Amino acid sequence: MKKRIVLLPGDGIGKEVMNSAKEVLSAIAEEFNHTFNFETHEIGGAAIDSYGTPLPETTVDACKQADAVLLGAVGGPKWDQNPSHLRPERGLLGIRKALDLYANLRPVKGFKKLLHASPLKEEVISGSDLLIVRELTGGLYFGTPSERRNNGQDVVDTLAYSRKEIERIVDKAFQAAQGRRGRLTSVDKANVLESSKLWREIVEEKKTQYPDVVVEHVLVDAAAMKLITNPTQFDVIVTENMFGDILSDEASVLTGSLGMLPSASLNESGVGLYEPAHGSAPDIAGKGIANPLAMILSAAMMLRYSFNLNDEAKLIEDAVEAILDSGFHTADLKVQNGRQVGTVEMTHLVVDYI
Amino acid sequence: MKKRIVLLPGDGIGKEVMNSAKEVLSAIAEEFNHTFNFETHEIGGAAIDSYGTPLPETTVDACKQADAVLLGAVGGPKWDQNPSHLRPERGLLGIRKALDLYANLRPVKGFKKLLHASPLKEEVISGSDLLIVRELTGGLYFGTPSERRNNGQDVVDTLAYSRKEIERIVDKAFQAAQGRRGRLTSVDKANVLESSKLWREIVEEKKTQYPDVVVEHVLVDAAAMKLITNPTQFDVIVTENMFGDILSDEASVLTGSLGMLPSASLNESGVGLYEPAHGSAPDIAGKGIANPLAMILSAAMMLRYSFNLNDEAKLIEDAVEAILDSGFHTADLKVQNGRQVGTVEMTHLVVDYI
Ligand SMILES: CC(C)[C@H](C(=O)O)[C@@H](O)C(=O)O
Ligand SMILES: CC(C)[C@H](C(=O)O)[C@@H](O)C(=O)O
Repeated sequence: MKKRIVLLPGDGIGKEVMNSAKEVLSAIAEEFNHTFNFETHEIGGAAIDSYGTPLPETTVDACKQADAVLLGAVGGPKWDQNPSHLRPERGLLGIRKALDLYANLRPVKGFKKLLHASPLKEEVISGSDLLIVRELTGGLYFGTPSERRNNGQDVVDTLAYSRKEIERIVDKAFQAAQGRRGRLTSVDKANVLESSKLWREIVEEKKTQYPDVVVEHVLVDAAAMKLITNPTQFDVIVTENMFGDILSDEASVLTGSLGMLPSASLNESGVGLYEPAHGSAPDIAGKGIANPLAMILSAAMMLRYSFNLNDEAKLIEDAVEAILDSGFHTADLKVQNGRQVGTVEMTHLVVDYI
Repeated sequence: MKKRIVLLPGDGIGKEVMNSAKEVLSAIAEEFNHTFNFETHEIGGAAIDSYGTPLPETTVDACKQADAVLLGAVGGPKWDQNPSHLRPERGLLGIRKALDLYANLRPVKGFKKLLHASPLKEEVISGSDLLIVRELTGGLYFGTPSERRNNGQDVVDTLAYSRKEIERIVDKAFQAAQGRRGRLTSVDKANVLESSKLWREIVEEKKTQYPDVVVEHVLVDAAAMKLITNPTQFDVIVTENMFGDILSDEASVLTGSLGMLPSASLNESGVGLYEPAHGSAPDIAGKGIANPLAMILSAAMMLRYSFNLNDEAKLIEDAVEAILDSGFHTADLKVQNGRQVGTVEMTHLVVDYI
């Protein structure tokens, strides 16, 4: 198989962990006789510094021609005071919109060896394995008008959705539930928001097409509680952009190993952007201690979701599990009596396993 | 002191716990020589059943003339399929708007005796004591347009704020921080939302007026994480309506005793509506096992915030603490080797202490 992969390292530890993903993918290519052509482009703060914009056109063009995109992370204190259109996050929002990456998949699953680092009691978190499906290109983060009014005395943002936008993400979530334990929790605020009412109607309409999936509706405030009190009750959670932003970050800390969580953002044609759930961690950037595993597991998600290379994906996931089981860990993972390694050494452990 | 208190028991366990609050307040009145005149009115599902509307005008009028309002809880499966304007929650939203209750205060503090019931590890949650100040009458839950468009193919909700609305809640939060540990965390999504940018600007402007308060800004997704990983870092959190809805419910389960958490919703003239953070719990309604302590502690908040009766408030709070310390608890509080009591018995324990 021959694939064109665009690498967007971005800022902070993004560059370091991207190198790790590339090495691991090269090992996979060699082992399974694939050809992966890599092309690196700028996004976020790095792009602002070199091109004066967080999302240069060359980056967008390259991504549009790619079979898949890997992204490290964007942002850092250097650009925090910039005006809106010159903020690193704009690059991320822009590429999501440009590629129409409407479906953000965030799996959250504990690693046995790491559960002790969870802020939750072991009996609460143990056994949890959920997938948040977040709508990523609509809602409050993209709706217009989004502006000041009356000389800056008033301000307005707009939460807008079309029926089609809701239908496609709901379909995606039903399909994901079919491939998992067959349970779907739709999260909304249907007791208050008109958009949530439409959302709930569409979920109800769609469920007749997926008779093998059991559906429940939970209000967003209740969902924020249940994720903590009883995370094992969830299989797939589907929700709109902003609720998904909050709930997926909330969920990401439950297992105690944010540095291990990958994510995928997909469009209708199967092209995807894959990135770790963690940020650019400017405080540890350049020190060689960043945990590359979330980035490496994101590459595994790419193999599975965009290239349908399930064996290859599984090999990477098995490698990670085995390495953790033998006690290796990076500085962020507080493993007792383990052996702490840096970014490069952890990467080599994965490559060697492959 | 002579005060007129409107009681809105509402639905489910609301009626039972309201009786408890009334008994406790009567004991306080007797002990401290106050006159509390109680008037009971309908709201929510109960009001739909008797008046065909979740918020009858008689209820609004009575609340407008009251010195303070106590609310039990609204909602239940009986009314879940009703059209929007006939849902119990509309009564709650309506009374907040009618009384201009813009400031919702939700303290979250663990009780030593109950911390073992927290989903968090004791070392994570122990010592946490925070106050969420939520804007309650603006933002996405009240903005217009909120409607279907193009034959129901599109839908829109509106997040609107005026500068004045933001200023008054930010002032309230700074003042609350001054009366506590002097730290204020403002939560927004200023990297994406225009409304959040104005919010952050106003917090920055205001902070010069409160030099004794240390301010930090945290993005809402990061705040959802930090509440779990490090809840003790927070003193006062201030945020807009929807973020506050989600974060305050998230925070409410951290200590493991949702049945213990009171809340206050205040307007500019100091009139307030006080209600437990928990809901109407239809599954246990009428069984005599509901925990009345959140409602009783809400009455204590009323004494403090609306009537400035600090000794009286403190006596109630001390009573609750002492009763828990002696091992008494309701069914929801899983105390080991404690003595389980029902709603009425728990209420009498508080009254006897007073
Ligand atoms: C950087 C920001 C715009 C982004 C979002 O909220 O969508 C991020 O928080 C995320 O969740 O990927
Ligand atoms: C019932 C609902 C409208 C309400 C809200 O979200 O404001 C409730 O969840 C609350 O937090 O008091």
